[in-house]
Amino acid sequence: MERSGISGRGVIEIGEAGEFGLITRVVRRFPQGPLVELGPGDDAAVVRVPDGRVVASMDLLLEGRHFRTDWSSAYDVGRKAAAQNLADIVAMGARPTALLLGFGGPPELEMAWAEEFSDGLRDECALVGASVVGGDTVRSEKIMVAVTVLGDLGGRPPLTRTGARPGDSVAVRGRLGWAATGLAGLLGPVEVPERFTAAHRRPEPPYTAGEEARSLGATALMDVSDGLVQDLGHLARGSGVGIALSSALVPLDEGVALADALTGGDDHAFVGTFPAGRVLPPSWKVLGEVVAGGGVTVDGGPVEQGGWDHFGVTS
Amino acid sequence: MERSGISGRGVIEIGEAGEFGLITRVVRRFPQGPLVELGPGDDAAVVRVPDGRVVASMDLLLEGRHFRTDWSSAYDVGRKAAAQNLADIVAMGARPTALLLGFGGPPELEMAWAEEFSDGLRDECALVGASVVGGDTVRSEKIMVAVTVLGDLGGRPPLTRTGARPGDSVAVRGRLGWAATGLAGLLGPVEVPERFTAAHRRPEPPYTAGEEARSLGATALMDVSDGLVQDLGHLARGSGVGIALSSALVPLDEGVALADALTGGDDHAFVGTFPAGRVLPPSWKVLGEVVAGGGVTVDGGPVEQGGWDHFGVTS
Repeated sequence: MERSGISGRGVIEIGEAGEFGLITRVVRRFPQGPLVELGPGDDAAVVRVPDGRVVASMDLLLEGRHFRTDWSSAYDVGRKAAAQNLADIVAMGARPTALLLGFGGPPELEMAWAEEFSDGLRDECALVGASVVGGDTVRSEKIMVAVTVLGDLGGRPPLTRTGARPGDSVAVRGRLGWAATGLAGLLGPVEVPERFTAAHRRPEPPYTAGEEARSLGATALMDVSDGLVQDLGHLARGSGVGIALSSALVPLDEGVALADALTGGDDHAFVGTFPAGRVLPPSWKVLGEVVAGGGVTVDGGPVEQGGWDHFGVTS
Repeated sequence: MERSGISGRGVIEIGEAGEFGLITRVVRRFPQGPLVELGPGDDAAVVRVPDGRVVASMDLLLEGRHFRTDWSSAYDVGRKAAAQNLADIVAMGARPTALLLGFGGPPELEMAWAEEFSDGLRDECALVGASVVGGDTVRSEKIMVAVTVLGDLGGRPPLTRTGARPGDSVAVRGRLGWAATGLAGLLGPVEVPERFTAAHRRPEPPYTAGEEARSLGATALMDVSDGLVQDLGHLARGSGVGIALSSALVPLDEGVALADALTGGDDHAFVGTFPAGRVLPPSWKVLGEVVAGGGVTVDGGPVEQGGWDHFGVTS
């Protein structure tokens, strides 16, 4: 039988279309921006880096671990895959410029899934002007996504996790606990408002936060991917300081519990430290301060274990 | 029970050590070269790109699909994961500078496997002076590896697949058919010399071929990852030309069949096109010429289907 790339049901599966059929259909969905000198189709892509330094990060997403196809549409998974990577570049105070996509799936996966995923990836990238410039495909039992994102610093120093100093204020911009609340709702039995399940499916990082934090004199910046307390622990360690949060200051959107705001991941809010006395705009919520010592406290005490260990077994 | 990261057998498993235990143990094996402004540990890495353009490529490797842990040591898989990515950058006429590593494995995977894999990755990178600057880890049923490699062009134009012109000679440097011969030996029942099974486990791309091809005036260059004929088909399409190979000119190392040399992948030889009459050093073997038209022929005829489709089902 000729491999036409079309199954008896009239539905195209990626195994029937073949590797190059899949690549062709996906690649044509990705417009190439002005910084792209050479896009998909060669051994490697070539992207202009005006700054002379490239910022680079990689994230993996696996079906069943980071998303479920019965909970999230392909389009939403594409948005999420891009968003969590773009947020890493923004958290460096850089501008995302280009993505590379590694995509694995079973042969029987419908081509429409791969195409809608690609559309989601593209549309999220469009929010910041980044292009999908290359990647790789492979056959795998479950859907797997590897995304590498590149960015440009525009001549400015990176905003790292190492610059926080005692006396700095700690402030956050973006959602806290939304995705965790939504995940709990999806796991049941408690129903939660749609905005939270939507937030689990598709985070909405406030991408302008990086530039804003820079203009506000941020001494350190990161995105909240594993949970506020856990991620601030990395920042505290990186800067050799302690961080004292006040539960009364943690911004709690209606319907979000304090525990979820403190330990829930996947919303990709941005948390930074700012020189003492710096007046911040309302979009940034001060929730604590940098102190001498180490570790993260809430109301002066230790915080219950939270956050996401990708290998740990919760007990 | 306390999670000490050490199982009852005295063997450390990555699930016991946890995500950050794994990252800590892996990251400390990666030295950072002079181009790295910020290595692992922040939201993203920062790498200097002297050329002002970054060359970037990504490859995925899956257990059971690209390697088997009963056939290949962790160290060899690390070497292979780096090699096939580094070859992509060399094939652009660029110098590899930095790698990002996405690593997934089951919780019961021994830490020693991840560490030896990392050593292999590091040692292969050392051959070209590249640093492993960041990445991500995830829990997965089988071992999965995503590698992104970045490179620098040093002010020169990239060597793409689009520059071949009728009259150019086609020449290859590196092994053809070694890995395919070795894989056939591993699949049995025919025994093959150890050098071929070793070549399947760990390709040895001749990394100086990129610079050499550039100095020889190459009009196009690529690495042979899926098979000579299939990959040259991409080059022919990219350049809008045909390629006429002569079977008598295909370099056949003792023990390699012509079919394997023409269609076997995974050796990461480099194949390029060079202006007519250009005298090439003995390391480059001329095996055909660029002609008007399209497609790839051997001795004037079409070539049996070969090469590797990552989704296709061989029949």
